Amino acid sequence: MKRRPVVALAGGVGAARFLDGLARVVPPARLFIIGNTGDDAEIHGLHISPDLDTVTYTLAGLADPQRGWGIRGDRFGCLEALGRLGGETWFQLGDRDLGTHLYRTDRLRQGATLTEITAEITARLGVRSKLVPMSDARVRTRICTAAGELEFQTYFVKRRARDKVASVRFEGAAEAKPAGGVLEAIAEAEAILFCPSNPFISIHPILAVPGIREALERRRDRVAAVSPIVGGRALKGPAAAMMKSMNMRPSAAEVARLYTRLVGLFVMDEADRKQIAAVENLGMRAVVTGTVMHGRRERKALARVVVREMGISL
Amino acid sequence: MKRRPVVALAGGVGAARFLDGLARVVPPARLFIIGNTGDDAEIHGLHISPDLDTVTYTLAGLADPQRGWGIRGDRFGCLEALGRLGGETWFQLGDRDLGTHLYRTDRLRQGATLTEITAEITARLGVRSKLVPMSDARVRTRICTAAGELEFQTYFVKRRARDKVASVRFEGAAEAKPAGGVLEAIAEAEAILFCPSNPFISIHPILAVPGIREALERRRDRVAAVSPIVGGRALKGPAAAMMKSMNMRPSAAEVARLYTRLVGLFVMDEADRKQIAAVENLGMRAVVTGTVMHGRRERKALARVVVREMGISL
Repeated sequence: MKRRPVVALAGGVGAARFLDGLARVVPPARLFIIGNTGDDAEIHGLHISPDLDTVTYTLAGLADPQRGWGIRGDRFGCLEALGRLGGETWFQLGDRDLGTHLYRTDRLRQGATLTEITAEITARLGVRSKLVPMSDARVRTRICTAAGELEFQTYFVKRRARDKVASVRFEGAAEAKPAGGVLEAIAEAEAILFCPSNPFISIHPILAVPGIREALERRRDRVAAVSPIVGGRALKGPAAAMMKSMNMRPSAAEVARLYTRLVGLFVMDEADRKQIAAVENLGMRAVVTGTVMHGRRERKALARVVVREMGISL
Repeated sequence: MKRRPVVALAGGVGAARFLDGLARVVPPARLFIIGNTGDDAEIHGLHISPDLDTVTYTLAGLADPQRGWGIRGDRFGCLEALGRLGGETWFQLGDRDLGTHLYRTDRLRQGATLTEITAEITARLGVRSKLVPMSDARVRTRICTAAGELEFQTYFVKRRARDKVASVRFEGAAEAKPAGGVLEAIAEAEAILFCPSNPFISIHPILAVPGIREALERRRDRVAAVSPIVGGRALKGPAAAMMKSMNMRPSAAEVARLYTRLVGLFVMDEADRKQIAAVENLGMRAVVTGTVMHGRRERKALARVVVREMGISL
């Protein structure tokens, strides 16, 4: 009997680390990962899918362990040469990483879909889990700041996420369709997991693709989220700062509130034990455990808690 | 008083080596180099101008001394990664070299001309000579073979120039205009030099841009060509093989014949001394000297002979 899939909604580095642990606890071929593409960008004419790449490289064992993004041991000869010519170099592109971008861009130009290309790349790199973009359509996260509306990578990388964020929107999302298999996987999943990713820029873009939110609401009892906020701070990235600038308290419970009606189980760090009642008041079950993933041991331990609490069959 | 320019028509490696010597004999700022762009190609969506790059890298002192093309010490991490993904890797793209292609492609997309971009790249890399493409328009060398008509880089790199060549044509040439300054430079030049390049695929594409041949014919007395054929063989590339397959004898004199009415002085190797009469029968003066450029000494020596024979003021 074919096992039902375990679905994950994934952003970048935090998600990749969690999924790396999960794929060592659950058979990796059972994982169906829906990757955020709202932060995709065209840079130097190349189509870059940072979150898909981070998940791919991590599951392929190629990721740079310190940075989290990019390929371990990669060099930056191309970027240096480009900088010498006066080209823009704020977006870090490693030489080997560029191979991925050239491949993807070329295949898109040939008419392949992002879903097809992602399947090709993951297969070639030996990733046994299924990774699909949230949509094959173009969806672009735009950040509204005092400096005006910014493209996501301009906000995130070029300006180092220092602008106060007033709001976030997902250009193109209303017209987008979920990638093939996404709604089916959610419908038949044994469990659906929101990785510890930034809600505003990693999970919300996925939810903004018409049909996905509704599909999740129907499976709420089988949906769990892992908090990306620990002790009021984001482990990586601007999630806490964004919450403050959007007049929210940066806390695990506030992330849970963002997932009301979508999530049945909320997993947060032991540091946030005092917020259990606040989370349970939202109508979801709360579990505390160690969520800070220093290494493989912590990644697997966190995955085991989620698997146990969701009763995922092994 | 501003010195009149010394104009050169240039292909790739042979031209670059000759020009490197010339720029050490004549003040480099006097050189106005018209580069072949018939072998430009779009590879992985990048606009590649192999001859412009070879001349640029050589004059900038960055060229790989063995290969002649590409950047000294460059690595191939991107190409390796692309190959791992199943992408095509027959066109060698070094990581630093890729910086040039990304820069050029991006600037073209922004609306800059190839002339402007080439000026930017050469300035950034410290090249003091002026290098211009033969045209800003798209001209593409097509090679007619028994296997059908091939794109130039498919013939040259992918199939290693092994197909017998029936004919060569320059797609787009009839509608192209010479790049800005080209006709003026030819008209006012103190001398015009055909570098030791393949006539069919390096010099003929330049001559195919309407106006250039006529401008050269008017200056014939001030035009010199250096033979790329020595002792019946091409020093580099398929020139001799192409001559044979097009029913020509592979010889310096046969190259001279291709330049009838265009060239007043023909410079060939001492090995071809016996062909002096044949060349002079074509109505041009013939000079023999050492034309094989092993190193800088030979490059400069050849340049000095050309400068002396053409009476170029120093």
